Amino acid sequence: MERKGNLMTYRPDIKVFDATIRDGGLVNNFRFTDDFVRNLYYTNIKAGVDYMEMGYLADTDAFNPEEFGDWKFCKEDNLRRIVGNNETDLKLSVMADVGRTNLKRDLLPKDQSVIDMVRVATYINAMPAAIEMIEYAASLGYETTCNIMAISKARTEDIEEALKLLADSPIKAVYIVDSYGALFPEEVQRLTEMYLEAMTPSGKQVGIHAHDNQKMAFANTVESCSIGASFLDATVGSMGRGAGNCAMELLLGFLKNPKYNITPILKFYQDYILPLKADGLKWGYDIQYLLTGKMNLHPRSAIAFTADGRTDYANFYYQLDLD
Amino acid sequence: MERKGNLMTYRPDIKVFDATIRDGGLVNNFRFTDDFVRNLYYTNIKAGVDYMEMGYLADTDAFNPEEFGDWKFCKEDNLRRIVGNNETDLKLSVMADVGRTNLKRDLLPKDQSVIDMVRVATYINAMPAAIEMIEYAASLGYETTCNIMAISKARTEDIEEALKLLADSPIKAVYIVDSYGALFPEEVQRLTEMYLEAMTPSGKQVGIHAHDNQKMAFANTVESCSIGASFLDATVGSMGRGAGNCAMELLLGFLKNPKYNITPILKFYQDYILPLKADGLKWGYDIQYLLTGKMNLHPRSAIAFTADGRTDYANFYYQLDLD
Repeated sequence: MERKGNLMTYRPDIKVFDATIRDGGLVNNFRFTDDFVRNLYYTNIKAGVDYMEMGYLADTDAFNPEEFGDWKFCKEDNLRRIVGNNETDLKLSVMADVGRTNLKRDLLPKDQSVIDMVRVATYINAMPAAIEMIEYAASLGYETTCNIMAISKARTEDIEEALKLLADSPIKAVYIVDSYGALFPEEVQRLTEMYLEAMTPSGKQVGIHAHDNQKMAFANTVESCSIGASFLDATVGSMGRGAGNCAMELLLGFLKNPKYNITPILKFYQDYILPLKADGLKWGYDIQYLLTGKMNLHPRSAIAFTADGRTDYANFYYQLDLD
Repeated sequence: MERKGNLMTYRPDIKVFDATIRDGGLVNNFRFTDDFVRNLYYTNIKAGVDYMEMGYLADTDAFNPEEFGDWKFCKEDNLRRIVGNNETDLKLSVMADVGRTNLKRDLLPKDQSVIDMVRVATYINAMPAAIEMIEYAASLGYETTCNIMAISKARTEDIEEALKLLADSPIKAVYIVDSYGALFPEEVQRLTEMYLEAMTPSGKQVGIHAHDNQKMAFANTVESCSIGASFLDATVGSMGRGAGNCAMELLLGFLKNPKYNITPILKFYQDYILPLKADGLKWGYDIQYLLTGKMNLHPRSAIAFTADGRTDYANFYYQLDLD
């Protein structure tokens, strides 16, 4: 295996992708203040971040807007309330979940929107629906990615098949998504090699979205990057579902490209993330997430364990073992 | 580079080394209750842990015993109060710091002690003194290791020279010690290869002691292990100085040898570690430790920042940058 670059160089293909509002929104039902979102937007610009995901493009027929903040739906006027016409180098993205999005009704032609990229999130068994959404978004003029979730549960043959379909699609990149925080760097290396082999011939790139169940989110991101992944997801303070994500402050501390600047992220962390924690919002590495990650399970039981304020880890593990 | 073993196999050379009392003692001046130490001892036996470090063998002329708990000094009668004659498979160790230990006065002949191993901790510029201590401890009948601290600051030529000296010494293993939490897996890989190359011809082994400043303690331990390190340090709940260590619960969740059992560690965590946190003891990954790790600095300024309850991370970073 040949590594791309080393600790003294930087690769211009790398794109730092801020998913704080989108993955972090899973912690607080997307109820961020405008001040929070606007400050994060300016923080990302100052930090040299390449993409900022504003939230989901969820279907209001499937989700009651009264139960969620605006960033679950990312209506154009709400986006513009924060970013105006976004006349900056920071690109904006939204995530569209297969089966929970009405793209044909909700996605405007690109020339009427501040959105630059639509990331289509899918489980591997719904690839045909994902490809249809990708093709539709691309036809409207958007950059697209395909984020194949829960990859630690997918069979190798199915991944190979999905990558073949995606190589012929209009995507810019395909993401390795470790939804369960189950992967070790060795597995991330193999997956990255496999994705690159399938995507490089058609000029497409690879991305990594990691979770911190086994404190491997940053390590797996660094590993995937060193093998050749270009799109690197992170969130400020690791804010995200369950054990959270690769921390933006760790990622920017690591990358050598002088365009990236950690200081605005540190300020945002102290001014905006710490107050969320003080208000009682909970996310981040903890034993219950380690256990679902190690068992390669969806974190939902660990999230419930956390919400119930339980600390009987040994019982929790015993019950997982019986599931 | 050839990896040793894979995620489905296990290597019988691996030794899991619990450093909770020794590195964790740096958080509370070694003031653990007997109940804590005794329960950890039985927990390690049940979990299949190979070695337990009982603390330091510090010189009472250099440190006032009234300011520290018993585990700073590890007097034989205090050890026996906890472990009796230790008629178990769990081996016991103590750490001896170069310049802070009076081995000739304080170390009994092996047949009068329950201690199995003396780990000599040194900075690389004090290797001759370390070798003298190693030879003395070995002459009394003990297993020995050399733990070269702050390795991220050492010059490659000096490491090579130190490894040559150690290859001719009676040590069982030499440790890569990332005191500053500054190393990335790529660097750990190179160091592990270098240590193995120097040690394998004389039948000696390599160990890894990692810190979590950049959330890499577990990832670096897994990396070093996969290259061939045998001695793997961990602490329950990552308890240790500053950002803490590789978590025992992560390490045992990863290792495939069925002799290891995570459940006793989970019980110890909930019954003994959580109360320490509830009492206000502080350790573990946080932004200030990330910053000293990234800058390859001793964590002392980050420890002071934590003790002062500060959260002005951006100022802290700016000051580090000026140092």
